[in-house]
This record gives sequence, structure tokens and C-alpha cells, in this order.
Amino acid sequence: MEGKLWRKNLIDIEPYVAGEQPEDDKIIKLNANENPYPPAPGVQRVIREKDAQELKKYPSADAVPLKKALAKRYGLGIGNVFCGNGSDDVLATAFRAFFNSDKPIFFPDITYSFYPVWCELLKIPFETKPVDGDFKINVCDFYGENGGVVVPNPNAPTSIGVGKGFIKDLLDHNRDCIVIIDEAYADFGRYSCVELINEYDNLIVTQTFSKSRSLAGMRVGMAFAQPELIQYMQAVKDSYNSYPLDQLAIETAVASLEDEGYFKETVGKVVSVRDRTAERLRAMGFDLPDSETNFLFCTHPKFRAEDIFSYVREKGIFIRYFKKPRIDSYLRITVGTPEQMDALCAATESFLEENTQA
Amino acid sequence: MEGKLWRKNLIDIEPYVAGEQPEDDKIIKLNANENPYPPAPGVQRVIREKDAQELKKYPSADAVPLKKALAKRYGLGIGNVFCGNGSDDVLATAFRAFFNSDKPIFFPDITYSFYPVWCELLKIPFETKPVDGDFKINVCDFYGENGGVVVPNPNAPTSIGVGKGFIKDLLDHNRDCIVIIDEAYADFGRYSCVELINEYDNLIVTQTFSKSRSLAGMRVGMAFAQPELIQYMQAVKDSYNSYPLDQLAIETAVASLEDEGYFKETVGKVVSVRDRTAERLRAMGFDLPDSETNFLFCTHPKFRAEDIFSYVREKGIFIRYFKKPRIDSYLRITVGTPEQMDALCAATESFLEENTQA
Repeated sequence: MEGKLWRKNLIDIEPYVAGEQPEDDKIIKLNANENPYPPAPGVQRVIREKDAQELKKYPSADAVPLKKALAKRYGLGIGNVFCGNGSDDVLATAFRAFFNSDKPIFFPDITYSFYPVWCELLKIPFETKPVDGDFKINVCDFYGENGGVVVPNPNAPTSIGVGKGFIKDLLDHNRDCIVIIDEAYADFGRYSCVELINEYDNLIVTQTFSKSRSLAGMRVGMAFAQPELIQYMQAVKDSYNSYPLDQLAIETAVASLEDEGYFKETVGKVVSVRDRTAERLRAMGFDLPDSETNFLFCTHPKFRAEDIFSYVREKGIFIRYFKKPRIDSYLRITVGTPEQMDALCAATESFLEENTQA
Repeated sequence: MEGKLWRKNLIDIEPYVAGEQPEDDKIIKLNANENPYPPAPGVQRVIREKDAQELKKYPSADAVPLKKALAKRYGLGIGNVFCGNGSDDVLATAFRAFFNSDKPIFFPDITYSFYPVWCELLKIPFETKPVDGDFKINVCDFYGENGGVVVPNPNAPTSIGVGKGFIKDLLDHNRDCIVIIDEAYADFGRYSCVELINEYDNLIVTQTFSKSRSLAGMRVGMAFAQPELIQYMQAVKDSYNSYPLDQLAIETAVASLEDEGYFKETVGKVVSVRDRTAERLRAMGFDLPDSETNFLFCTHPKFRAEDIFSYVREKGIFIRYFKKPRIDSYLRITVGTPEQMDALCAATESFLEENTQA
């Protein structure tokens, strides 16, 4: 038992760290960009009526019922759709399928922190492109030769989105590599570029059911692209795990897509609570960009973000603070219900009062 | 649009091909080693009573309730348990965590056909060790220097299992590398080596809920090992996809574990139907090893396996035929209900009659 020579072949990596998942129901959880509203009523129906007998069989390996429903919803062919175990699985699959160059892939320096983790795991060289002082992505930074491009729209944790002009500019200057637009939050923003997949055969758009569709608990993500690119993603999936979506993940996602009215209503509520909360935070002296997501990214010129984070946490409100260069004076606050936002604002106000001496 | 230079960075792989999933309910499906019996009654209860509201939240990233239930069932600590999206996800995670040597990993030549696919995807060198003429694994073949070892017990598609002596011999000769014992079918066999993880700190044992627990539709797999090895698997998981198990996958798996009586009864039924069917096939002139799994691996000295496969398929019975060296005269038949086995035997008998001229 002494030598432990087997240790020399263990992998050497630094994993991604997700937001905390406290078990206490009394906690107001504004730290994981979850939707405060339940999924569409049809989701409950699907679960209640599911015959457990069917679970003895494997699910559709290609999640065919879900692909069909997504194709219908987005006016695409089934061959334009890929489904995975959350958009993390979809993005990891795309990174592996498309980023096999010696040249670095490009993504912003302030962005979803899983990108560099996948690059390390999959041994993909990468170069980050600094966002400007207002956290805006400069499209010219992405013109150079590269092994691929990943841009989230809207970006996280900055909450800033871009419009069609930016995306087309990015694509027009990147015709020789694969461009991934990560649209995890696009349903809350101004523009989704799914419409461009027929125009740009090197474009992959990824989305998720975890945010706008209130199904984080079921782990469903998707990608849209030309069939050739989707087939490469299928091949990677089929070389790793043939059945990433279970029967209930497929069926609940389909039920969600069948209720467009509920979807629009929920997204509308989140957007209006978001914009009202942004105004309240600004009135308290916070600086924050206009959010196109279901969260707010804010800083206060007079107080340390970490102190506010700790203070509201003690009051049972979990928000997100990243101790990272450039953003360590910022807080990321998920948009909850009006009541949750009242609690957050009240806690923040008492922090400001207690820490402001006349 | 002409150049398509982006094509040069696409991945080049040959994916695993799973058994067909026909949509027609009238088909007798004996081609994917699914369990013919439904999951434990508690599974239906969990689904029926699930509050869909909860689905707006992410699941436990570490599937904690399931880890606790597995630890209890197997008399282990929670630190000894890893959970994944089916045992394919668990095995792929283990391959990546543990097989990072320049030396080849060893596995049998006739075995689960996903192993070489993962090696190709993850760029792991490998060497296959031929099983003998009776498809038995020769343990001495695994004594040499290597980058790791994978042995399924029982093996698939051969259905042959080994006992404690073999596994200990294998482990005693492989103290400097990680040894994975893939126990997807162990609940139908004579021996599971989970008891050895405390004795061998380089042993990983993988299992699944898809076979003996009738939950193929929910995609749940697990691994057992010393906490150090489990932590490496967690790090790989957290570098790829933080939440591979959705809430209902976790909860249905827990419900299955809570009903030990039902589990034993179901496994017992499959085993007795299996052994009776083996006798019937032998009476028809088939040769087959004693199965320790939920399937039978058989050959007929007078008829082509492919012809039998096609014949029963036309009668609506799907079994598995592998057009591969060494096993292309064999059929793999999943053990179904007694009625399904009657249908299979009747179809096979009429094939034999029609093709035997007096």
C-alpha cells in the first residue's frame, strides 16, 4: 500500500465552482440566477401523469420529442437542433466538437467562468479579450485569427447584451472558425441570433431551460445550427454518453414549450421586476448597467461589495460576490419575486444606513 | 460562404452505436438489456407527488440525497460514492480522471464497446487482451505494466462473470495503476467487489440503476471508491457539467433504494427466467455460457446468427447481433418476461424448423 504510484496518472485540474445551494427553505436565494416563478402548469401535469413503468426503458437517445418541439417553436428543422444535459453539457460538447485548433479560441475576460475551465479540461488554447471600463465587449478585439470564438449574449455576470449589428459584425469577421453565441439569458434580452443560423453556417447558438423556463432542476439545454454542425455535436455526444436526457427531462421540457403564453408572462414579470429593482438600487447610489438578463450587476461607489454581500447574507439573503480581478467591487443579484426584491432592498438600505455616519 | 475553412477544426471520431429504440409498442424489445419489470412502486409515488414548483431550482450539485442513500445501502461513507448521468457518464468521468498515462490501459478484446470509443475521444492509449476460446478473461494477461485496467464483471456481451479470487488476483497484480471494475450487471451475478474498496485504494467500482433497478429511463449511475479517488472524479465532473443529475433522477433513484424487497424479488425473477430460457435454447441446439447477467449470449452450430436475428426481427422481436470479429456468430438476447421469452423461443423454433430439411 506504500508506493501509491497510481497517483501519478491522476488528472490535474481546477474545477468550476457553482453558486451555493443552501438547504434551508427560509433563505432568499438570489445567487444562482434561478427563476422565481414555477415552470408552466403543463410541467406539473406531465409529472403527475407519468407512468413509472415506462422508466424501465431507455429514453430516446436523441431526445427526438424535444427536438421536434424545439424545431416547431423556433421554425427550424429537427436537424438544426441539439439537446443536452443543461447548457453546460451542450457547451462542453460544442467546445470539444469544434475547438480543435492550435490557435487560441477567443472569449471576453469577464464572462461565464466555465469557459476557461472547459479549455483547461479539453486542452484548448485560449485568449481572453478584455471588456472595456463599462464591461462592454469590443467587437474589433475578435477580428484576429483564432481557433474559434465564444461570446455570450447577454454576457454574464455583467448582464449586458448586444444587438443584431454586433453579432453580424462578429460573424462577418469570423468566417473561418466556429462562433458560439451563448444565449443562456437571451429570453430576457433584446436579441436572439437563432434567426442567423441559416445565413452563417459556422454559427452555433446555445440556450437553456434553466432560466427563462424555470426548469433548472431538470437540466435541459439546447443548441441551434446548420445540420452539419449538429451532426458533429451528436457524434461527440454519442462518443461520451448516449442518453444524456432522461425521459422526464425530455417530457417536462416539451410541456414547457407547449405553453407560450405562460412563458411570455413569466419572462415579462421578471423583466419588469428587474427594471424596477434597478431603479431602486440606483436611488440607493448603486451603479449598474441596464440588465438584459434575469440578474443585476451592481457596485456602490462608497461601500465594499463584499461587506454588503456578507451583511445581507446574515439576514438570510444569498447573492453572488466574485472575488476576482476587475469585478471584486460588484455584486450579482438574481431577480426574484417582488417580495424577495423588497427584502433585498430593505436589507441593503439598512446596511447603507448603519454604515453611513452623518 | 465558399472556403469552409472552419471544417479543419472539427473533431474526427467514430461514435458508439447504441441498441435501436423502436417506437412501436408491439415490438418485443430484447435488444438493450432493459429490465422487463417496472421500477419499485415508490418510484411512481415520488413522481406523482413531486411539486413541480421545486424544479425552478438547481438540483443538489453533488446529488447528496442519493449519495446518502447509496452509502447506507452499501455500508459505506458518503465520501465513498460518486453519482453520474448513467454509468456511461460515470465511466467516462473515471477514464478522464484516472487514465492520464502514456502507457496503454488494458481491457478485454470482447467487452463493452464504449471503452475504445472513450479512449479515442479522450486520447487514451489502450491495448486489448483477447479473451480465450470460451470468452473467458485470462487474468495473467493483465499482469503487465499498464496505464490502468478496466474489467467488467460480469462481462458484456459474453454474460460471463468471475468470482472474488479473480478480482483479488487482478488487483494484487495491479497496485500501481487504477483498476475499474464495471459492475453494470453485477446484481445478476455471483460477486460484487464493492467490499474490496477499503482494502484496495486504487479500485473503482461502477454500477447503474438501468438494469437491475429498472430505471434506464432516468439515467443514474454510480461509482464506489476511497474518498481520494472520488474527489478526483468530482473535480472532473465539476470541470465539465456541475449538475448531471436532475431532481427527479435523484429522487426516483432514492425511492428505488428504499425498497430492497422489491429489488431482490425482481432480480430473482429475471435470474430464474434467464436460467430457464438458457435451458430451452440449449435444448434447441444453441451453445451458450452460463449467464451472470440479464441477457444470454448464444450461438447455434448449424445456423448463421445473422439469419436468426433477421428472422425473429420480422416477427417483431428485437435482439442484438454484433457484426464484429470473433462474435459475429453470436446473438445477445435480453431476458424479458416469461411471455416474451415464450415468444422468442417460439420464433426461434420456427426458424429452426423452416431451415431444417429432413
